[in-house]
Amino acid sequence: MTESQKNISRRRLLSTAGAAGTAGLAVGGAGGAFSYAAAQGDSPALSSVGSTAIPFHGLHQAGITTPAQSCGHLVAFDLAPGAGRKDAVTLLRRWSASAEAMTAGRAPTDTATSAAGAAGQIALDAGPSSLTVTFGFGLSFFPKAGLHDRIPAALQPLPAFPSDALDPRRSDGDLWIQIGADDPLVAFHALRILQKQAAGTATLRWQMNGFNRVPGATARPMTGRNLMGQIDGTNNPKPTEKDFNAKIFASGRTGRTQADSRADSEAWMEGGSYAVVRRIRMLLDSWDRLPVAHQEAVIGRRKSDGAPLSGGTETTPVDLNKINPDGSLAIAGDAHIRVAAPESNGGATMLRRAFSYHDGYDPDGTPDAGLLFVAWQADPTYGFVQVQRKLDGGDGLTRFIRHESSALFAVPGGAQPGEYVGQRLLES
Amino acid sequence: MTESQKNISRRRLLSTAGAAGTAGLAVGGAGGAFSYAAAQGDSPALSSVGSTAIPFHGLHQAGITTPAQSCGHLVAFDLAPGAGRKDAVTLLRRWSASAEAMTAGRAPTDTATSAAGAAGQIALDAGPSSLTVTFGFGLSFFPKAGLHDRIPAALQPLPAFPSDALDPRRSDGDLWIQIGADDPLVAFHALRILQKQAAGTATLRWQMNGFNRVPGATARPMTGRNLMGQIDGTNNPKPTEKDFNAKIFASGRTGRTQADSRADSEAWMEGGSYAVVRRIRMLLDSWDRLPVAHQEAVIGRRKSDGAPLSGGTETTPVDLNKINPDGSLAIAGDAHIRVAAPESNGGATMLRRAFSYHDGYDPDGTPDAGLLFVAWQADPTYGFVQVQRKLDGGDGLTRFIRHESSALFAVPGGAQPGEYVGQRLLES
Repeated sequence: MTESQKNISRRRLLSTAGAAGTAGLAVGGAGGAFSYAAAQGDSPALSSVGSTAIPFHGLHQAGITTPAQSCGHLVAFDLAPGAGRKDAVTLLRRWSASAEAMTAGRAPTDTATSAAGAAGQIALDAGPSSLTVTFGFGLSFFPKAGLHDRIPAALQPLPAFPSDALDPRRSDGDLWIQIGADDPLVAFHALRILQKQAAGTATLRWQMNGFNRVPGATARPMTGRNLMGQIDGTNNPKPTEKDFNAKIFASGRTGRTQADSRADSEAWMEGGSYAVVRRIRMLLDSWDRLPVAHQEAVIGRRKSDGAPLSGGTETTPVDLNKINPDGSLAIAGDAHIRVAAPESNGGATMLRRAFSYHDGYDPDGTPDAGLLFVAWQADPTYGFVQVQRKLDGGDGLTRFIRHESSALFAVPGGAQPGEYVGQRLLES
Repeated sequence: MTESQKNISRRRLLSTAGAAGTAGLAVGGAGGAFSYAAAQGDSPALSSVGSTAIPFHGLHQAGITTPAQSCGHLVAFDLAPGAGRKDAVTLLRRWSASAEAMTAGRAPTDTATSAAGAAGQIALDAGPSSLTVTFGFGLSFFPKAGLHDRIPAALQPLPAFPSDALDPRRSDGDLWIQIGADDPLVAFHALRILQKQAAGTATLRWQMNGFNRVPGATARPMTGRNLMGQIDGTNNPKPTEKDFNAKIFASGRTGRTQADSRADSEAWMEGGSYAVVRRIRMLLDSWDRLPVAHQEAVIGRRKSDGAPLSGGTETTPVDLNKINPDGSLAIAGDAHIRVAAPESNGGATMLRRAFSYHDGYDPDGTPDAGLLFVAWQADPTYGFVQVQRKLDGGDGLTRFIRHESSALFAVPGGAQPGEYVGQRLLES
């Protein structure tokens, strides 16, 4: 691509596409709104930010391999006292129906969510805005729902790590929802609807708000920056890699012989994944006191463009054996990307899909900000747990972060049309 | 609209237009904005979301008539014990220089903000993303800075209103900054830089995060929705109206005779404005229990499209005298738009430019969400105070909201190149 092509603004692109007849698009009013110029009946005029819809149905739930949206809500619920499997069936069915509607840009038709009904929705006249809604089950859910015999082998409590400083009130949970969207009102609306549908069946345990860059704020097409200013996510496994599915998605089998009685017990996880959720506070004041060369040594990548200190560009494979002219390692022994690398962890890997968070300041002026870390893998024991055992203590970044909450959820495969998420667990 | 049109992704649009060989640049944003990409020969490829820059210099500060951005931070500081006018001069000079750089898409060059210096910035490789930074002075600032004789007549403490439930820890403040941007990382970066520059001179008093719709999520070109789902801001005064400046911006004179000694004392407010800041919690659970027709009666506008209940479309002037066939008022006696209307308040008006906020949930599951109300006027006595006296008690909406914090700031005129914001106050 030439420099001049790179410099094309989205507004011009849209109007050019319209002139070319590609999609009948043209520029709308002021303030960044774009409209379909061709006669569209009374359809709303949306730019691609609003009009992009992520299908709800599929082999996997949306929100795992979907590019991270600019707004995120994570929320965990506990079943209300006395609620059990039957209540969970009703709730998951309602949640799925609402999620399916909202991700397609429709108002949920469940009028129980609001006396005002569909006409009372918060995000009226918005497009789907890349909304995804992803549901998971915590270990504590299973006994309450009488499903002890359906606990998958991989859903083990995470071990305690020496550096953890966990707040149990913001950890764990029976049920979990991850909401992502490229518009804050669409995301908030989805959160409100789903919370109201839980009333009487499940109570809110914790809720966290996060964000990522808005599409178009930067030219970087793939990886975002975190609040340390570091490009984050470069070495994520790519869906195009041949072993991606095996590493990230559960097979629905324990991996033992078919004669193993557990083989059937977790068939419901076919196409699912395990989400490790950690609220990781960044000690930004300490971090900012480091000169940039020190920051880069801690991470192992250049701050400006994410290139590994072993050379090349952001996407150049990291050379952990590269030696500097002075005989030192190009990627330091405790550099984050060395300690976290699959090569350092017997091939263990996970798909990180995080949101940044900023919940204001502590009374002393310290920012309460960092990463809502969400990592996906086929089995946490061979993903997050294995990597974190090494990171905790061995990673130079440990001095600048603090894990303040933790949770693990079994996230079932996607629902087919007519099915709800979790049906294969709850009605098996 | 066909399904295939709906499903056009932004990537597709970009690649299609790219193939058409377009290489032009379009100006984004509202009047006065310019394209960052156009000014930078080797700049990264940004969409108009990232490339739009709002000029820092001007007769008025940016962030008042600028269309509200999708991300906002409000932050108040108090001068540190012992700090005075000289320290304030240093701080405001540094703040202005950083704000001018960041709003133009450059890293601030003040290395005191970070050991990592310009290379360590959080929002590296982003465009200016419509960043605005607006500075104000609270009444408590003046005596601390030895500027008792420069307190403008309009900077009176706001009266207590019967329904107020104010938290003093989140109210008032010596210094105030309003940050807005269309990218969350750009906004957070600006907040961090400005807070670090205050170290030793001013301590953080309170800080609030807000949001609005992302450009392009909806076709509505002008007015956004608040978290009640209501279109909000339709009746705002428009900069094109002939008395707009007189209503919104201070003249720098008291309005009394030129012989009045106070005439000179507030010349520094020429081109400035007064910002009333209220954190207004919405009692969303109560609100959502109302049928939509009741919600519309409380507001006086249709929820779907914002049209007044007296008829027409969103922008049709409200007819407060319209009578329904059954003899009732079309706009109820306690409807919000009736009680707030300039006609009901001797012409008193203000420019509302709010952000929504959502700080999670109270322990009982009640959302801590609502409006970061920011209202601009030439004199609060004939703007917010006059309207709020009538709203508090008389407005049907009062039952569904709660004012939880309050502040008033004198926001001086914009700086000219080479000048810093507040210089005409601090060096007069």
